Amino acid sequence: MIGKAVFPVEPWQVREASFDVDLLAQTESVFALANGHVGVRGNLDEGEPHVIPGTYLNSFYEERPLPYPEGGYGYPEQGQTVVNVTNGKLIRLVVDDEQFHVTHGRLLAHERVLDLRAGVLRRSVDWVSPAGRRVRIRSTRLVSFTQRSVAAVAYEVEAVDHEVRITVQSALVANEAQPGTSADPRVAAALDRPLQAVEQDQEQHGAVLLHRTRSSGLLMAAGMDHVVEAPADFDEETDVRPDWARTTVVTVLRPGERLRLVKFLGYSWTSSRSPQAVRDQAAAALTGARYAGWDGLCREQRAYLDDFWDAADVEIDGDAVLQQAVRFGLFHVLQAGARAERRAIPAKGLTGPGYDGHAFWDTEGFVLPLLTYVLPGAAADALRWRRSILDLARQRARTLGLSGAAFPWRTIHGEECSAYWPAGTAALHLNAVIARAVERYRQVTGDLSVERDCGLEILVETARLWTSYGHHDAAGVWHVDGVTGPDEYSAVADDNVFTNLMAAGNLRAAAGACDRQPGAAERLGVRPDEIRAWLAAADAVHVPYDERLGVHAQSEGFTRYAAWDFEATRDQRPLMLHAPYFQLYRRQVVKQADLALAMHWCPEPFTAEQTARNVDYYERITVRDSSLSACTQSVMCAQVGHLELAHDYAWEAALVDLRDLHANTRDGLHMASLAGAWSTLVEGFGGLRERADVLALAPRLPEGIDRLRFRLRHHGLRLIVDADHRTARITLHGDPGGRLTVLLYDERVEVTVAEPVERPVVPIKPLLGVPEQPPGSAPHRHGVDP
Amino acid sequence: MIGKAVFPVEPWQVREASFDVDLLAQTESVFALANGHVGVRGNLDEGEPHVIPGTYLNSFYEERPLPYPEGGYGYPEQGQTVVNVTNGKLIRLVVDDEQFHVTHGRLLAHERVLDLRAGVLRRSVDWVSPAGRRVRIRSTRLVSFTQRSVAAVAYEVEAVDHEVRITVQSALVANEAQPGTSADPRVAAALDRPLQAVEQDQEQHGAVLLHRTRSSGLLMAAGMDHVVEAPADFDEETDVRPDWARTTVVTVLRPGERLRLVKFLGYSWTSSRSPQAVRDQAAAALTGARYAGWDGLCREQRAYLDDFWDAADVEIDGDAVLQQAVRFGLFHVLQAGARAERRAIPAKGLTGPGYDGHAFWDTEGFVLPLLTYVLPGAAADALRWRRSILDLARQRARTLGLSGAAFPWRTIHGEECSAYWPAGTAALHLNAVIARAVERYRQVTGDLSVERDCGLEILVETARLWTSYGHHDAAGVWHVDGVTGPDEYSAVADDNVFTNLMAAGNLRAAAGACDRQPGAAERLGVRPDEIRAWLAAADAVHVPYDERLGVHAQSEGFTRYAAWDFEATRDQRPLMLHAPYFQLYRRQVVKQADLALAMHWCPEPFTAEQTARNVDYYERITVRDSSLSACTQSVMCAQVGHLELAHDYAWEAALVDLRDLHANTRDGLHMASLAGAWSTLVEGFGGLRERADVLALAPRLPEGIDRLRFRLRHHGLRLIVDADHRTARITLHGDPGGRLTVLLYDERVEVTVAEPVERPVVPIKPLLGVPEQPPGSAPHRHGVDP
Repeated sequence: MIGKAVFPVEPWQVREASFDVDLLAQTESVFALANGHVGVRGNLDEGEPHVIPGTYLNSFYEERPLPYPEGGYGYPEQGQTVVNVTNGKLIRLVVDDEQFHVTHGRLLAHERVLDLRAGVLRRSVDWVSPAGRRVRIRSTRLVSFTQRSVAAVAYEVEAVDHEVRITVQSALVANEAQPGTSADPRVAAALDRPLQAVEQDQEQHGAVLLHRTRSSGLLMAAGMDHVVEAPADFDEETDVRPDWARTTVVTVLRPGERLRLVKFLGYSWTSSRSPQAVRDQAAAALTGARYAGWDGLCREQRAYLDDFWDAADVEIDGDAVLQQAVRFGLFHVLQAGARAERRAIPAKGLTGPGYDGHAFWDTEGFVLPLLTYVLPGAAADALRWRRSILDLARQRARTLGLSGAAFPWRTIHGEECSAYWPAGTAALHLNAVIARAVERYRQVTGDLSVERDCGLEILVETARLWTSYGHHDAAGVWHVDGVTGPDEYSAVADDNVFTNLMAAGNLRAAAGACDRQPGAAERLGVRPDEIRAWLAAADAVHVPYDERLGVHAQSEGFTRYAAWDFEATRDQRPLMLHAPYFQLYRRQVVKQADLALAMHWCPEPFTAEQTARNVDYYERITVRDSSLSACTQSVMCAQVGHLELAHDYAWEAALVDLRDLHANTRDGLHMASLAGAWSTLVEGFGGLRERADVLALAPRLPEGIDRLRFRLRHHGLRLIVDADHRTARITLHGDPGGRLTVLLYDERVEVTVAEPVERPVVPIKPLLGVPEQPPGSAPHRHGVDP
Repeated sequence: MIGKAVFPVEPWQVREASFDVDLLAQTESVFALANGHVGVRGNLDEGEPHVIPGTYLNSFYEERPLPYPEGGYGYPEQGQTVVNVTNGKLIRLVVDDEQFHVTHGRLLAHERVLDLRAGVLRRSVDWVSPAGRRVRIRSTRLVSFTQRSVAAVAYEVEAVDHEVRITVQSALVANEAQPGTSADPRVAAALDRPLQAVEQDQEQHGAVLLHRTRSSGLLMAAGMDHVVEAPADFDEETDVRPDWARTTVVTVLRPGERLRLVKFLGYSWTSSRSPQAVRDQAAAALTGARYAGWDGLCREQRAYLDDFWDAADVEIDGDAVLQQAVRFGLFHVLQAGARAERRAIPAKGLTGPGYDGHAFWDTEGFVLPLLTYVLPGAAADALRWRRSILDLARQRARTLGLSGAAFPWRTIHGEECSAYWPAGTAALHLNAVIARAVERYRQVTGDLSVERDCGLEILVETARLWTSYGHHDAAGVWHVDGVTGPDEYSAVADDNVFTNLMAAGNLRAAAGACDRQPGAAERLGVRPDEIRAWLAAADAVHVPYDERLGVHAQSEGFTRYAAWDFEATRDQRPLMLHAPYFQLYRRQVVKQADLALAMHWCPEPFTAEQTARNVDYYERITVRDSSLSACTQSVMCAQVGHLELAHDYAWEAALVDLRDLHANTRDGLHMASLAGAWSTLVEGFGGLRERADVLALAPRLPEGIDRLRFRLRHHGLRLIVDADHRTARITLHGDPGGRLTVLLYDERVEVTVAEPVERPVVPIKPLLGVPEQPPGSAPHRHGVDP
């Protein structure tokens, strides 16, 4: 947990007012900067103390063996782990003869500010060395959104009350020691010092280091360049070694004088190009950065973010905590996806080594809904990444004895890296979630290029996967047996409602896309009878329903299973660390929203009463051991009218990292939950849904939110939804002739740029009382800051 | 495969008439000798060539890490692997200057004979050295049934046509190089040179070596002693080193003269006693062996076996192949269990390193039925071993969040060593199989001591396991969800019929035992309401039945699952090496008898018609990828009247190792299948069943068997069942007043020692035609030797 006092509640920034070494691991993640291509953890400039030093290049990974005590056919043999690449953010400071270190000497002040509009991390330090020399340090760090390969630091030291000799050592360091990642010596060996030196190039004010990974054979270059401003003479020199380079600046400052060092960093990597090409690319990045200059980089950064916030901001009156948390989340999702550009968006973005840097269904399921509405180009790129690994997914399907394509449950480069198949391979729903993201992109943006370039092929190949795996029973009903839905406490089950409905949606989407692109479909070998088979399966899909209880069974037989003893296990979270899968899988205990997610994403088959009853039933057995759960629970609670509970869950989703609610923020931020926080507001309290060809909205606010205002992009237009407790108003911006049909509180209304639409809020009365959660799993109450 | 010509069909021996290096791995297993305590593979006396050198002490194991790429709560972290202990059977021969080796020089003759009545392995060799010196070698090896710690070799060399200098080097060798066992370096490291030298003792005619395992900390001693007979002067000397000892005898033989060396071996080991105690125990074993002398050991051995065969032999007229194979199987099961004496009986006995030397449910499920009827003391000892690990099983149940005791799926020392829980922990039926063995022992022997000493506690603790795991649904029906039955291609399923019926039997047996021993039950904390709960669960147990098909579903929903594409996978055996569990688990494909085993062991709930229909249905989808399957399929096919098919399966079970039908005889023999071969005859063609308190018999022979005669022990009496195609006759031996009620062809008859009973065979007409098996899974036809 991070106490509420650590980060003061401020609308546009996250500020740590004083240094707390016990929260260093968490703040390394919270203060991470990234642009989707390069990421740096919020490590201190001087490198130490640290918990997890981290600099990442999207998709730059090393392979490692996956050891099984009892192997099995089709088990992946190679894992992939994101590499902590050459650290360029390191700037050491020596004051007279003392190395600056926050835990030596006296720290008079230490503040770090993540500025969500400027897109920089600022730090100011007031320090007295053990020898009694006081200095002020100000550093500002950025990872550029506009120059993909560039990061930069402006570092300033001021002498306060004595003349001091200031030595600044700015470095590139490869193969930093990492905290242990595995008890397996083979794995540790693969990941210990993963970078092999290839070449070093000393420049006038810096250097470029080239390294290669041993097993994956990827090549990278990291370069640094410097601009120094000093009030008097200074010396500058650069040393280069295979695993490090160091530019040293030394000068003497009188009280009030400042030494300023701007450090530009350029990164590049390749799986195929030559060392020379990669070296030159890093050098070109440095040239571009130097050409823009520090101030230019900052201006570009702010302009980029101004545009982003204009399209993406969510304003919340009355709940300043949620306001800050949601913007923090939006900013970090932007950092994860902005410039990923046909690479994966990992579950932790580029903020830490958690989950080995893998991408999961989190991307398409939770991050892309947001990006599709506010930064559609990034969503398109993420889908194009999936297309780029389609051949590997085809191979994987062949390995599994299936047709079409089976995307990897977790991966960096595209190969399946999940080593526990009941919660990997069996989670076949991932494929339908990807298909849904393809379909959503088209519906929301109106842009057909993604479907044309890659979407059709993804839809067709995933549809083929479903028909080769599912089957019709003797009565013609279509089943998908032995799969794992989102709830990982119920693996290898039959007819998971979420999976079945998503698969049916996948099949229909594929049929629709083939209909729109008959020529391309034919080139993929799709024949009319194949499409008929898709639709026949979708139409005959089984959706288990328990007549006795009047609720849907999450999967066949689920509601007949034994109850879980929640009382006895109230202090055991997550349950999977206290109970074996053997016990969890066939009990009525739900790790994370599963049927709730089915109702959120595929609302059609559920009546209002069924939805209310289902929410009530599953709320009581969901322990929320996954950070992917709160946002969905919030959206569904809002839908059935439990607005206060929805508000609680919105806090859970939004504060996951600012309060470290899952006690693992140290390993990186939870992108899906941060994006999910946006969903709690826009889809939950805003009531946003995509219905076939029309946008549905139904704003209804909880008591603690006075007014909610959010922006969406839709078919090239910009939409602003603005609601308080009485009125909901929709405004349209963009092409003066632009118009949009919206289902507002189930009423079909036309919105034009000229004429906003306003309607009184239609309240919802819950059919059932507010459900309780299992002991130990109730969300924190909103307004009571955890 | 081992061709039919390799071992000539002979009733009382298995003879390899000439040496085939390509079958060396298999013959090392086939010619293994053991007594349940000490086991030696059929390695050549001179040690080389070899495939897997093997000398084993029951339960002498080393620990090794179990590495998981994705760990989970309750996963065992330590494996156990049987250790190849100090090899004492090694006798090298040097003829003049040439070391004898079967692939050097010229091998004029090489014969090995496993004598099933003498209990020895004989070898005779006629060899010409590369230098042209011809010798005849005769060796006889035994592992004593009467002296548990003793093995011995009589080794004789004869000069044929030249005077030769003969050097015989008889050795003890620790830490022999083994073929690689694991790709994991940690595992390999743990098992590479597992023995650390502790102490060496040189004796007058031999030596004793003491070693300790690194991690498990077990201490062992291996000693050798020699008696030499030579026609002229000979020299004898002994060298001792930490990892080996060597007694060398040198002499000169003229043509026709012989050097004879008798080598006695004594083994001992401990987990707690001192090196001195263990050393002295090995020395005492040597003293005992020397006191008996070679001839004495052989006489004791034959007497022991005479007694065994008198109680256990099965005579088959008309099928010499099956006759030989069944006796081979009986002999090896005896070797596995005779002197195990409160240690586990591993799946491979002590014949090889397969399955790491672990014991599974094979013991209670397939080996103990045989031992209970023919060597009840060994069965009692095996059950007492289970009692000795009951506390570990209790701990395991606690780890799993369950009451009572959960026995390990695979183990040597008692800790769970199964690293894939869906086919380990989830196979909860093991506990009921153990309970059934306890109950069977009482029913068959009438001996209450096992129930008193250990059976009650096992029954009560396993009953508690079931009631803590199973549950009553809202309608009161009792379910056992998420378990794996015998069929490992259908893991983590609900209401597996076999598991449910066995669990119900376990619960009733526990209630019965508590009824017989109220005081002891009370001391175990059993109260009347607990017993009522057991019986309520047993009475309400769910047995899935598919009304539409008129067959039982192996587990809930099984008959609704998709068909397996048997045609496309006809050459893929075992399927698990060609398809992922993900595909196998929810298809109608059965690895091994599961519902068939339920009908075999729990026949009551099945009508004759249901039984016939079930056999028909499951025959068509059972691929028989486990060696535990053929015997059950044979028994059930016999029961429903498919006698010829039953005969085919009897061959499969009995010839599993003599023909290497599963292509893994190299790793050790299949004790369950070898014992199962007995079941095919006695329970299949003999119709033996235990019904509550009476023995049922119903001999019906297939065409290829003219007459079947088998022996059973029952309540201290000896029963001989003798049947041909017309008549079945039961004779009783023992106490002249002995009498027995038998259900013969469903007729209640009294058999006394004075009056045998004879009835005409009541034939059975199959209700359905002979079923086909999946393509690629039909058994070999009996009579057509594979």
